[in-house]
Amino acid sequence: MTALDCESPLLTDLYEFTMLQAYFDSGMNDIASFEFFVRKLPPGRNFLLAAGLEQVLAYLERLRFSANDVDQLASTGHFSPAFLQSLMHFRFSGDVQAMPEGTVFFPDEPILRITASIQQAQLVESRIMNLLHYETIVASKAARVVLAGAGRMLVDFGLRRAHGAEAGLLSARASYLAGFTGTATLLAGVRFSIPSYGTMAHSYVQAHLDEARAFASFARSQPDNATLLIDTYDTEAAAHKVAALAATLRASGVAVKAVRIDSGDLGEHARRVRAIFDGAGLQSIGIFASGNLDEYRVRDLVAAGAPIDGFGVGTRMNTSADAPYLDCAYKLTEYAGLPRRKRSEGKATWPGRKQSYRRYGADGTMLGDTLTIEGDTCDGLPLMRPCMTRGRRVAPEVPLLTSRAYAAQQLAALPAALRALEQSAPYPVTVSTALQDLARAADALTVQASPTAAPR
Amino acid sequence: MTALDCESPLLTDLYEFTMLQAYFDSGMNDIASFEFFVRKLPPGRNFLLAAGLEQVLAYLERLRFSANDVDQLASTGHFSPAFLQSLMHFRFSGDVQAMPEGTVFFPDEPILRITASIQQAQLVESRIMNLLHYETIVASKAARVVLAGAGRMLVDFGLRRAHGAEAGLLSARASYLAGFTGTATLLAGVRFSIPSYGTMAHSYVQAHLDEARAFASFARSQPDNATLLIDTYDTEAAAHKVAALAATLRASGVAVKAVRIDSGDLGEHARRVRAIFDGAGLQSIGIFASGNLDEYRVRDLVAAGAPIDGFGVGTRMNTSADAPYLDCAYKLTEYAGLPRRKRSEGKATWPGRKQSYRRYGADGTMLGDTLTIEGDTCDGLPLMRPCMTRGRRVAPEVPLLTSRAYAAQQLAALPAALRALEQSAPYPVTVSTALQDLARAADALTVQASPTAAPR
Repeated sequence: MTALDCESPLLTDLYEFTMLQAYFDSGMNDIASFEFFVRKLPPGRNFLLAAGLEQVLAYLERLRFSANDVDQLASTGHFSPAFLQSLMHFRFSGDVQAMPEGTVFFPDEPILRITASIQQAQLVESRIMNLLHYETIVASKAARVVLAGAGRMLVDFGLRRAHGAEAGLLSARASYLAGFTGTATLLAGVRFSIPSYGTMAHSYVQAHLDEARAFASFARSQPDNATLLIDTYDTEAAAHKVAALAATLRASGVAVKAVRIDSGDLGEHARRVRAIFDGAGLQSIGIFASGNLDEYRVRDLVAAGAPIDGFGVGTRMNTSADAPYLDCAYKLTEYAGLPRRKRSEGKATWPGRKQSYRRYGADGTMLGDTLTIEGDTCDGLPLMRPCMTRGRRVAPEVPLLTSRAYAAQQLAALPAALRALEQSAPYPVTVSTALQDLARAADALTVQASPTAAPR
Repeated sequence: MTALDCESPLLTDLYEFTMLQAYFDSGMNDIASFEFFVRKLPPGRNFLLAAGLEQVLAYLERLRFSANDVDQLASTGHFSPAFLQSLMHFRFSGDVQAMPEGTVFFPDEPILRITASIQQAQLVESRIMNLLHYETIVASKAARVVLAGAGRMLVDFGLRRAHGAEAGLLSARASYLAGFTGTATLLAGVRFSIPSYGTMAHSYVQAHLDEARAFASFARSQPDNATLLIDTYDTEAAAHKVAALAATLRASGVAVKAVRIDSGDLGEHARRVRAIFDGAGLQSIGIFASGNLDEYRVRDLVAAGAPIDGFGVGTRMNTSADAPYLDCAYKLTEYAGLPRRKRSEGKATWPGRKQSYRRYGADGTMLGDTLTIEGDTCDGLPLMRPCMTRGRRVAPEVPLLTSRAYAAQQLAALPAALRALEQSAPYPVTVSTALQDLARAADALTVQASPTAAPR
């Protein structure tokens, strides 16, 4: 396998191309709208945080087929030469409406709409879902950690158990968007301008046999940036070594920035280590904790008053371990000017091009949303905004820091019950009369041929 | 963000580089062994299936730094010019021992060992874990689906909710290794020579308004490959439309290959649809089912005798939804000829270079493993084999089909209780006396300075 090309137009489901071939054969290519939305919240969650839009827009801007891509597609034997040839000229030239990254949203509310010729809008389904689903689930999980962290430093530690390379990079991005302080993943730091943080591993201590020598050697190498890992053998014994070492190091201009505790009862160890440092006049050394953390453990440590200055949160956040997927869909809602929806059992969807309006109270708290059809006017502020027109962005890329600030505003506007980690009563999302009428109209449009009728 | 470069040497944790800088400063670069292993099985699991080795070997072979990589590293401000310069010559020149892909393994048994200078062996930690962890957890989950499927066709459907692009590709590979029939992810099919499968989406039916017309149009476009999705509105009504259509299509040389059912009670719908087709003399049309499937649902449908010929299994397999991560580690076990281990609370590890021996009964069933130190001789067959010496592969890349056949053998050799989906008594893995002795020796080597002793 050569370098993974995430931008390959073949990074999609085969069925997108078999459908395209069929549309091509029958000359069907009217304008379609598809919307991405979540059917229901994962258990225990009160809201979701939209993320991944910038990656989707970059994908749409750059999507094209090389001769090699077309050759590979030809080799499957499913496609006609004329269709394959047409792909050489493929460009996405449609419109995109979306909620800005960092928007809080709820079931049935679309966070992205593609309006384009059906061949274009269909082809991009798989990768759009792949991007929006993952960044959204991580941002939504990370937002819970941020709420639980009550302002403590939070660093993404999850590359090693993230599901592959792109998950490692995008989870660093999504967690930073949601309010994390930074990431341990160097490439994510470089690519997305996210502050990066690094400490040391147990192996570094083990390689030295003498723990104190390991600490001294590392601190001298990172004279203003050393975080020493103190739980390889005995946490409190190691804290005493750090305390003894600190004076010597200070004399040579080296300051120990912090220690990290990665195992055992993190709160209890932190208290004892804090006392050891404070007793030695080392109030300046911070305590950083890691190891199987999630929003619940962070909340409990904060509530117990553990003297922990920052948390490394990895695996459970990057995999959204308690809810590793969303019940989400990218569905055709309009074709050739007519509303469409599916009515599959348990999976019926709302037709048409939709908009959400959000009402806020005088103190800025979210009061409720209305889901309606585009063009309908409702109280509140519309959440879907134009992002791309005829294949071009309507505005430059939104800086990640801007989206991060917007996410913080959105989280601050959540009703108190929704900010809790426990499941609350659902946030009110009302479906407008206009949208309900459209659903009935869409159903009436579908030819209800009797079961034994021959096709026309 | 430009194309994701999974092969960037910066796709790692920052701490790998801060440790390397410290080793560089102190001139520490003796030979180290690190081993990757899983501490314990996820809840409900009886075994794991090793996967990801080929990607690790390819990564090690190609790992190097461009001038741009070094510039980006320099921009963090943590590294000395001499150290940065040294990275321009970095090549992995160590040895790799590993269990072949498709090997069944158990907690504490290493599936990969890197033996190299400590700077090399440390640097590769994060990406090695990222690759082995993900492919192993997917192969292990997919193996359960394969055991439940009892020979039915199984197709990976999971790209859209896999965690990013690489997860989509590697889960197609890992599930095929474990025994899946193929994948819907086109690029994975092309890259890994995996059979690819595609059907149609609900949007295709919705765009046509007339369901029967959608079926006819699609079948004519894929005259020997059409699988028609029949649950957009009413599954049995759609089956009648397909039956009525089949004769017309057959006259024009078009055969409907199968139908797909994606919602509702899959077993009950399949029975009714089978009856409709059989009643029309259409025994040749297969029934394919998808929608929230995992090993339990597949097993129940098979056990109930549902006339389903194949299953599309996606999200829950690609995210290993019930166990989205493994408690795994990449730990220093030897440095400068001496065994090492950490003793952190709840995370103590076995030191030294290890080997697993597996004993088989006369009928080929696995009887038990012995975990011991390399060079010790035990009953059974050794599982760790040399893969790379001084940075070069000892043999050409193992074809995926070869590993797939080996995985099938391994699954066939599992004791019956371990093949069940329910948790069984643990498979016996004995720790040899030699390894236990080595652990005591490793502990004695660590300098046990008193808590207040000054560093040497």
